[in-house]
Amino acid sequence: MLDVCLLGTGGMMPLPYRWLTSLMMRYNGHSILIDCGEGTQIAMKEKGWSPNPIDIICFTHYHADHISGLPGMLLNMGNADRTEPLLLIGPKGLERVVGALRVIAPELPFELRFMEITSPEQTFEFDGFKLKAFKVNHSMVCYGYTIEIDRSGRFDKDRAEKLGIPLKLWSRLQKGEEITEDGVTYTPDMVLGEKRKGLKVTYCTDSRPTDSIREAAKDTDLLILEGMYGDPEEAEKAVSKKHMTMQEACEIAGEAGASELWLTHYSPAMNWPDNYKDTVRSIFKDAHIAKDGYSKELNFED
Amino acid sequence: MLDVCLLGTGGMMPLPYRWLTSLMMRYNGHSILIDCGEGTQIAMKEKGWSPNPIDIICFTHYHADHISGLPGMLLNMGNADRTEPLLLIGPKGLERVVGALRVIAPELPFELRFMEITSPEQTFEFDGFKLKAFKVNHSMVCYGYTIEIDRSGRFDKDRAEKLGIPLKLWSRLQKGEEITEDGVTYTPDMVLGEKRKGLKVTYCTDSRPTDSIREAAKDTDLLILEGMYGDPEEAEKAVSKKHMTMQEACEIAGEAGASELWLTHYSPAMNWPDNYKDTVRSIFKDAHIAKDGYSKELNFED
Repeated sequence: MLDVCLLGTGGMMPLPYRWLTSLMMRYNGHSILIDCGEGTQIAMKEKGWSPNPIDIICFTHYHADHISGLPGMLLNMGNADRTEPLLLIGPKGLERVVGALRVIAPELPFELRFMEITSPEQTFEFDGFKLKAFKVNHSMVCYGYTIEIDRSGRFDKDRAEKLGIPLKLWSRLQKGEEITEDGVTYTPDMVLGEKRKGLKVTYCTDSRPTDSIREAAKDTDLLILEGMYGDPEEAEKAVSKKHMTMQEACEIAGEAGASELWLTHYSPAMNWPDNYKDTVRSIFKDAHIAKDGYSKELNFED
Repeated sequence: MLDVCLLGTGGMMPLPYRWLTSLMMRYNGHSILIDCGEGTQIAMKEKGWSPNPIDIICFTHYHADHISGLPGMLLNMGNADRTEPLLLIGPKGLERVVGALRVIAPELPFELRFMEITSPEQTFEFDGFKLKAFKVNHSMVCYGYTIEIDRSGRFDKDRAEKLGIPLKLWSRLQKGEEITEDGVTYTPDMVLGEKRKGLKVTYCTDSRPTDSIREAAKDTDLLILEGMYGDPEEAEKAVSKKHMTMQEACEIAGEAGASELWLTHYSPAMNWPDNYKDTVRSIFKDAHIAKDGYSKELNFED
């Protein structure tokens, strides 16, 4: 239902065996990409996912490892004769940065639209899902993102019958539509039970631990956080470079009540992130040392 | 002596199994890179060659597949604490294009120097080698490059003795130095025989066949040309897109008297360039369907 794929798990620079961190999500015919570093288009092809249905690309910030793959990605989409507009979302400066990078991708057969994030927290609503940007704490302005899919309450057939609601309106009401027919207004709450648990995915890299991350990740089904450093001796470096350690990421996952944690954005100096598997699981049971192409299908609970 | 490596062999876009076309050469402590598309820094790491000794990056033109990897490459060099200046050579617009791309690589610990090519043919002389840019015919201004290493004549010990040239000056004269000592001027031609065959590598992509390529590639030891298309039916496409076919590349190699031809810059639609091996060898005996990482050490003849 909500397909999630971490196309890469590297930080700073792409490596022969590790693409740069980028998250792709597919939901209801939409595809969303968060971050697009050098090589992301190759990682996507390797995974077998298509760039054509992408309607939104979000950027956490404008360090090269999060956006250097954009010109190639845009040209790739253009070569596939895309005509649908593409929405870009990112911190202030988005249009300026993308405009500069387009010096090598000036002609595109589709329109680029821009939504700049201007406040510490901002929500964008689309066809059935919400995308929320939240400000974090890095060496340049940086945002994390959550994608949320709400789930309405169960349809109450007995109540619908009792209220005499015409059968032909049931499915539209179930989908959340308000309908006026023959002078009577029918609202979804007349036939729907209590709202049920939806889906939530939270993504954040690069940042020090912040309350905004803990808040955004509250009860999230899947939390994706950077684990730039694994060795306890690198804790100071994490502070000075405004990154977080794997241990800090695990603590956030616990505090936020996340169901599952994927670590990513490993330092190029970290050859074997898997070495930290036991350590991270001792802090947060469902912590995963994610690998390139890690993916999962998230579904509503039964 | 002159190490040559074709880091990638793709055109238009990088693929999971094919890096973008880029040529790296190592000679006498210098490394030179021609073209730097998305992923070139990864291809270089995969080959095991270091970006640190690169003192020159040349660009054939500014289509994304030939320059999109530059910001990442520069940051990569910066992360290795490079302080030596880096020389960039390319067609007019070099400083403007690189300046725009540096929106995501603004801070570097080393200086960038620029040499823009302003005439149809331009030669740059360095420490022991010549780099010659020659204009070709693509959909935007585009240049090919030759690198030439001259070889002086054999040292004639008997003549040196006969002329009474002091022994201590021999090696300097052999290296081509003109020396005045005690009022007497000694020139290399006094002790050197006829100039011997040097080394020459010629690289050109993307272009229609031109006389400038034939001229530049004359008697070259290694000719590297694009082979964007292999099927005879694609000949028209090659004309309209201003590329060349493998067959055309082979004809140029023959006309120029090249010793060896490496084909590269394959269309992303060409899954099996090797299928054309017999065809190209029937036109030019020493034609190679190059693969990523193809490399060779060129040495002076005995």
